[in-house]
Amino acid sequence: MLLMPLWTKENKIFIVDQTQLPKTWSETEITTIEEMHYAIKTLMVRGAPAIGNAAAFGMYLGAKNSGFTDGDSLKDVLKQAGDYLATARPTAVNLFWAIGHMQHFADGLPKDADRDALLTALFTEAKAVLNRDIATCKAIGRHGAGLLKHCSGILTHCNAGALATGAYGTALAPIYTLLEQGIRPKVYSDETRPLLQGSRLTAYELQRSGADVVTICDNMAGYVMAQGKVQAVIVGADRIAANGDTANKIGTYSLGVLAKYHGIPLYIAAPFTTVDFDCIDGRGIPIEERKADEVRTFCGVQSAPIDIPVYNPAFDVTPNELITAIITENGVAYPPFAESLAQLKKA
Amino acid sequence: MLLMPLWTKENKIFIVDQTQLPKTWSETEITTIEEMHYAIKTLMVRGAPAIGNAAAFGMYLGAKNSGFTDGDSLKDVLKQAGDYLATARPTAVNLFWAIGHMQHFADGLPKDADRDALLTALFTEAKAVLNRDIATCKAIGRHGAGLLKHCSGILTHCNAGALATGAYGTALAPIYTLLEQGIRPKVYSDETRPLLQGSRLTAYELQRSGADVVTICDNMAGYVMAQGKVQAVIVGADRIAANGDTANKIGTYSLGVLAKYHGIPLYIAAPFTTVDFDCIDGRGIPIEERKADEVRTFCGVQSAPIDIPVYNPAFDVTPNELITAIITENGVAYPPFAESLAQLKKA
Repeated sequence: MLLMPLWTKENKIFIVDQTQLPKTWSETEITTIEEMHYAIKTLMVRGAPAIGNAAAFGMYLGAKNSGFTDGDSLKDVLKQAGDYLATARPTAVNLFWAIGHMQHFADGLPKDADRDALLTALFTEAKAVLNRDIATCKAIGRHGAGLLKHCSGILTHCNAGALATGAYGTALAPIYTLLEQGIRPKVYSDETRPLLQGSRLTAYELQRSGADVVTICDNMAGYVMAQGKVQAVIVGADRIAANGDTANKIGTYSLGVLAKYHGIPLYIAAPFTTVDFDCIDGRGIPIEERKADEVRTFCGVQSAPIDIPVYNPAFDVTPNELITAIITENGVAYPPFAESLAQLKKA
Repeated sequence: MLLMPLWTKENKIFIVDQTQLPKTWSETEITTIEEMHYAIKTLMVRGAPAIGNAAAFGMYLGAKNSGFTDGDSLKDVLKQAGDYLATARPTAVNLFWAIGHMQHFADGLPKDADRDALLTALFTEAKAVLNRDIATCKAIGRHGAGLLKHCSGILTHCNAGALATGAYGTALAPIYTLLEQGIRPKVYSDETRPLLQGSRLTAYELQRSGADVVTICDNMAGYVMAQGKVQAVIVGADRIAANGDTANKIGTYSLGVLAKYHGIPLYIAAPFTTVDFDCIDGRGIPIEERKADEVRTFCGVQSAPIDIPVYNPAFDVTPNELITAIITENGVAYPPFAESLAQLKKA
């Protein structure tokens, strides 16, 4: 079963409300740009690629529900729609990419096309954005499956899965590819404090997809490795520097050190666009610190003194010497990453 | 301010209800053995040494509220009281130790002593049990403070603090000793999933005692080390094998590996009775697996699919090669621990 957080059916657009996971799989039709804005803002849709896909459809809906009549008035409408949609999650790079992409796409449409033709072109392009993302994830899955196929156990962290992308995910794509091949390794899923994306989302989507998943607390990962239960660690990436240093969800660095100590490979899986060639190494990646209440509470329940000082970095940087390989849709990069990533760029 | 989970005042016995922490510091007088049984059973009192102290006072209360008249009838009463109190937490070794100790103590009292004299002796001995525990913790604090005094940051895990003992704690004793000396390092306290003893108890008691404490999620420990924020890790122990291998709260092993990688010392602090000389190495220590719902939920709030498979080991074993020193009331043991621990036993 292919799990998708956003899909179309007979020209209608549907999403699953991820804020209700893991309790309820709640499907909602999105019919206006306002509804898509709300869905992105309230994290009903989350995950960088998934936000980009949603924004592409949001731009189409903005046009559809406006009174534009031709290419010129469409341009104005999409300018407004983009300005509005951009406020849904002002730090999401993929949101801005998708807005710009749909505006640029519309600019290239024939000047004499009528409203219906323009709308059809926009909807088709939004679907193409989604399908290209899925193709990227499938390619990551294909490249990664070869590295993981001999593992009886695999550890992952946070949610770099289908729910964060068009389908398949990035870190989870090789696991879905193996499932399609009839190979079913045990996947240890870190719960990933403080926001618990691992237990809420990764465990949910793997279970729903028929994978053999086991949830553990973050502090159990080292002991799981010591017991020989996993032969690989695979995670996604928020940003990869030109030398391979990788920013990802807090806790990834600890997993890198633990994997190295136990002689277990650490794989990073991400779309090639995650590589920032302008960023020479990890020192150039700023780390967001988030609010203390995420750590002082657990799913809304107070779990620490209400005024206790907290250190809450959202990400950490794993240096390239802890990374075995970086899996992208363009292929697999091995150390030295400065060279191998540059090679994959040219390819 | 010296924080104690159980104390006496004018012949009355008081405890703080730890199930209400970190929200409320709620003091309760305990007047019967039934109330003490309830307090131990419901985790109002928890932590191995603290349970032992509570049981000693429970035995006294059992005698006080019975109709015994002399040494012979006291013996019967304490037999009954012990059998009853033992059911409060059947796996707590210190509970059984305290019951046996008070019975043995009563056996040694003068045959011709009257009821008042016997009761006074029992109460005095219960206070002595508590005071010996506090003296043990103070000695651990004294030995450990010397090792930690140059640290600007210290990392700890779970709760091996005042709330788990008579006062001072074990892993936290050196930190309280430093505070008394006017030295105030920043203490990073792992929240310690799944039961969050770090954020609920360690953060609470350190803050209440005026320490400089910062709560982090367990998966942040490696990054905190990489940033140079801590110069030592100190934790308690549930059981120490003759060769120094140490069983402690799940996550301790990961901290050991991370500390080693960063060149940071890992100190174990525990009463010398924690060393089990009959256990040659860590392979002989059984690891309790606890129920899945501890990981699927927190305080009754669901955080994972309700039927997701879970691996939930309560403890892990840190091999001696990851341990820098073991701090006991008898002194500090360094590798090779098989020799140094045996030396401290003789001393």
